[in-house]
Amino acid sequence: MYKEDQSRSLLKMLTWRVSGTLATVLIVLVFTHEPLVALTVGGLEAVAKMALYFFHERLWDRIKFGRRRVEPVVLWFTGLSGAGKSTLAERLHAHLVSEGYAVELLDGDVIRSIFPSTGFARADRDQHVRRVGFLASVLEKNGVTVVSALISPYRDTRASVRGMCKRFVEIHVDTPLELCERRDVKGLYRRARAGEIKSFTGIDDPYEPPESPEIVVHTDDVSVDASFAELRAQVARYLP
Amino acid sequence: MYKEDQSRSLLKMLTWRVSGTLATVLIVLVFTHEPLVALTVGGLEAVAKMALYFFHERLWDRIKFGRRRVEPVVLWFTGLSGAGKSTLAERLHAHLVSEGYAVELLDGDVIRSIFPSTGFARADRDQHVRRVGFLASVLEKNGVTVVSALISPYRDTRASVRGMCKRFVEIHVDTPLELCERRDVKGLYRRARAGEIKSFTGIDDPYEPPESPEIVVHTDDVSVDASFAELRAQVARYLP
Repeated sequence: MYKEDQSRSLLKMLTWRVSGTLATVLIVLVFTHEPLVALTVGGLEAVAKMALYFFHERLWDRIKFGRRRVEPVVLWFTGLSGAGKSTLAERLHAHLVSEGYAVELLDGDVIRSIFPSTGFARADRDQHVRRVGFLASVLEKNGVTVVSALISPYRDTRASVRGMCKRFVEIHVDTPLELCERRDVKGLYRRARAGEIKSFTGIDDPYEPPESPEIVVHTDDVSVDASFAELRAQVARYLP
Repeated sequence: MYKEDQSRSLLKMLTWRVSGTLATVLIVLVFTHEPLVALTVGGLEAVAKMALYFFHERLWDRIKFGRRRVEPVVLWFTGLSGAGKSTLAERLHAHLVSEGYAVELLDGDVIRSIFPSTGFARADRDQHVRRVGFLASVLEKNGVTVVSALISPYRDTRASVRGMCKRFVEIHVDTPLELCERRDVKGLYRRARAGEIKSFTGIDDPYEPPESPEIVVHTDDVSVDASFAELRAQVARYLP
């Protein structure tokens, strides 16, 4: 929710007055051919109208008409661990912030770190994704665009989050399991193969790829810059 | 996030032009004593300045200066089951909506109904309150004022939610247990006394009252209207 400061109204008054008074002086000059009259009218007009303009602005600050809410959207990344979701989501978030959007980044790992008792068994994962989905839907309802990065492996759960939101854009970061496992940035695949981590998506817990995601991003055989450029172009369709 | 429509700029242009042109015509008339010149200048000025004003508005829509975000606040109700939290929170929410605030109501019972597997044992309650607190803090961070109504019985948990938020206002609905139990609107106290509900706050689970809440509301011996009037006056200190 935004309100306009008096300083904004004052500055608008000045920029408007300079352009307005110049126009008036010229018009009076053309009609009377008397520079003195033109300048006197301009001077008096400037003083009277600055006061008028200022109060006009303050009055309009209270009027809602024509203040359009920029429609927010939930940009929901899904994909395997190590697919590149967080990397792309962080860049997208930074880009949208720089464009002036009200936008919040919800990263699954970050939220888990706030609630460390959240487990990885199917019911726990399902609840975790639904909770973040609920958070996203409340933010969207309040005009905030959401960029979320969770593995969110189950089709049903994603469908239920879609149902909570008004504008849900599913973004599948479609990196093959072999590549994710080869990268293994956090060493999680190694630990999952060694049996140290249970219910690891892609190893001993399923990943159900989206059937008709709004956006698909490929990260194999291309640079992060190229993936992001592709993503950004596609997201622009939903945030013009 | 708000943007101004062209229609808003057009209407502002018209209201401004009517007042502005009247002023110009009067000023020119006083100086030239020639009604025809005054009207001609007024007419020409009106056309030229309407175009100028419109583009001036469109330009300013892109300028951030002086657009102040209204500082949101987290209004956190706490109190026994049946104390009157939801009733007061709903009225406060409706009041703030009507005042034009961006505001979200988080009712503990409503959120539990979305996540029915949330239990009532100490660890479950604690997590539930923390999750709602996290949601409140993210909303606050994004400019949305929050009205929340949860029993939130534990002092530690409320302190931790306070730590997540920037402006946290604890509102203790201080209705005595005897009165809550006598009211027993949902029949929960009867069931708790009968042992049908376990870990019920005030019966077999503690309620730790706030030590220094920002606001205390009394609901005994006064009408809902009187309680709400008292609350509204106190909340006004945080949302001027």
